[in-house]
Amino acid sequence: MIGVDWGTSNFRAFRFGNTGEVIGRRSYPIGILKVREGKFAETLQEQVGDWIANGETRVLLCGMVGSRQGWTEANYLRCPVKIDDLAQAVMKISFAGAEAMLIPGVMGEDSNGVPEVMRGEETEAMGIVDDCDGCGLVCLPGTHTKWIKLRDRSIVSFLTCMTGDAFAALRKHTILSRLMNSEAAMDEASFLRGVARSADAGGLLHHLFSVRTLALTGDLKEETTASYLSGLLIGHEVRAVMPADVHVHLVGAVQLCKLYQRAIAACGGAATLEDEDAAARGLAAIGRRLGWL
Amino acid sequence: MIGVDWGTSNFRAFRFGNTGEVIGRRSYPIGILKVREGKFAETLQEQVGDWIANGETRVLLCGMVGSRQGWTEANYLRCPVKIDDLAQAVMKISFAGAEAMLIPGVMGEDSNGVPEVMRGEETEAMGIVDDCDGCGLVCLPGTHTKWIKLRDRSIVSFLTCMTGDAFAALRKHTILSRLMNSEAAMDEASFLRGVARSADAGGLLHHLFSVRTLALTGDLKEETTASYLSGLLIGHEVRAVMPADVHVHLVGAVQLCKLYQRAIAACGGAATLEDEDAAARGLAAIGRRLGWL
Repeated sequence: MIGVDWGTSNFRAFRFGNTGEVIGRRSYPIGILKVREGKFAETLQEQVGDWIANGETRVLLCGMVGSRQGWTEANYLRCPVKIDDLAQAVMKISFAGAEAMLIPGVMGEDSNGVPEVMRGEETEAMGIVDDCDGCGLVCLPGTHTKWIKLRDRSIVSFLTCMTGDAFAALRKHTILSRLMNSEAAMDEASFLRGVARSADAGGLLHHLFSVRTLALTGDLKEETTASYLSGLLIGHEVRAVMPADVHVHLVGAVQLCKLYQRAIAACGGAATLEDEDAAARGLAAIGRRLGWL
Repeated sequence: MIGVDWGTSNFRAFRFGNTGEVIGRRSYPIGILKVREGKFAETLQEQVGDWIANGETRVLLCGMVGSRQGWTEANYLRCPVKIDDLAQAVMKISFAGAEAMLIPGVMGEDSNGVPEVMRGEETEAMGIVDDCDGCGLVCLPGTHTKWIKLRDRSIVSFLTCMTGDAFAALRKHTILSRLMNSEAAMDEASFLRGVARSADAGGLLHHLFSVRTLALTGDLKEETTASYLSGLLIGHEVRAVMPADVHVHLVGAVQLCKLYQRAIAACGGAATLEDEDAAARGLAAIGRRLGWL
C-alpha cells in the first residue's frame, strides 16, 4: 500500500510493507496549491508511478488534497471521530493507476460553538493514539497549528491557531519587516524572552510593538528580533489554549516541536515530542482497517 | 505661522492666523517614506512655498519627520511631558525658506517597563488637553494606535498597539486573503460580531481562524469577512488595554474613530470623538509658547 499526506505546501508519500512498516518514503514541496489545472492524477503518477509499476495497487490519501481546492472534495466527519469512523468514510477517487481512497476531514466546534475544520491532522493524531493511550492533548505546530483533544481513542474536539501564518505575515508585511530582512538563525534566548513577554499586560497587538522599541533602544539585536517575535506569538498561543496540568504530545517537524516544547515549559506545562512519522503510522492504521495491510 | 504634521504616510499642513485659528490647510499622501534622497526641504518648499512667499516666516513640524528615517532626528523627551516641555525642546532645522523647528518625540515605558515611543501623537494629545480638563485617556486609532494617559496636563504614560498594521498584513498575506480580495464596504453587524468574538476563549491567534471557518460554513458572507476581522482585532485591543470605568477620548479620522467608539461601547466602556483638528490645535499651542502666535 502507498500512503500520501498531501497538504497545502507539501506532498509526502510512504510505501508500506505488509505489516505496515515504511519501506520507502518521498517528500516534495508540491503542495496542492502548486498543482496546475487540476492535474492531481498526473502529479501522483509522477511521484509514485514506479512503486505502482513495482506492484502497489492501492493508494490512501489524507490532507488538503481532499478539500475544495484539492483533487476531489471529501466529507468532513463530525467530532467525536474514531479511527474506524475515518476508515469507514474513505472516498474512492478516480485514478487510473491504482485503487485510490481519500480520508475525510474532521469538523468540530470550539468551546464557544465556532466551527473548526482539519484535513490531514486527524490522520496524524491517529498515528500516535497508541503512544498516549488514546487520551490526551496533541499539538501539531505549523502554519495553522492544531490542538487536538483525544479521549477513549476518539478525537473529541480540536482548535486551530493561525500562529505560523500570522508570523510570516507580521514578519514580512508590517513595520517589523525592516528589522527582519535577514534569514537569521533562531536565537533561543530571544525566543524565550518573547515567550516571557507574552505573559505581560496589554495583549498581543501591544506586545508586537515591543519588537520595534526593544530594537530601537538597542535592548534587542536586530538579528534576534524574528526569534523574539516567534516566541511572542507561540507564547500567546500556548497561554491562551493550553489547559493547566495537561501533558502535551507534540507532532511535527523536530525543530519547531522543540521550540513549542520550550515555550510550553516556560508557560508552566510539559510536552514530549512524539514520532515524527505520525502521518505514516496513521495512514497505515487506516489502511489496516480497510484490509489493505 | 505654518504647522506641519508629517508622518510616515501623510503630510498635513496648516496656516495659522495670529490668534491660532486655521486659515489654510493642505493634506497630501506624501509621508516621509515617499520623500526621496532626503529631499525634505524641497518637498516642504513645494507644499507651502506660496504661504512663505505670502509672508509666513516660521514653520513648526511634528511627527515622524523628526525620526531617524525623517529629515533630522529630534530627541525623545521622557514621560511625564507637559506642553511647555515640548516647546522648550524644539530643535532648529536647516531650511532656507523660513525659521523651522521640530517638536521632539516622547519616550515612556508600559506597565511592564518595556519602552514606548511616539512622534506626532504627543502634539495631537496636547491639542485636546483642554477638552478633557488635562486628565484622561486619549486613544488615537491608526496603523499604530496610541493610548495616552493624561494627568495634570501631562502625558504620564502611553502605549502602542499595532492594530492597523497587523490588520493590513493579516488581511492581505495570510490564508484569509483569499476571502478578502474585494474592497468591500464596512459591515457594522459583522464588525460587532468580531468585537464580540474577541471576548471568547482561545486568544487572537485562534480567533483569526474563525474568519475562515465561519466563511467556509456560510455563516459569514465573504464580503463581510474584512469587517469581522477588523472587529476581532479592535476588540482584542480594547479588551487588553482599556481600564475599567475610564472614559476614552478618541482623536483621528472620523470613520475609524466611530468604529473604535462602537467597539469600546461593546466592551463595556464609553468614548467620545474629539476635535479632528487636534494636530493643528497642538501645533498652535506649542507655537504660542514659542511666541510665534
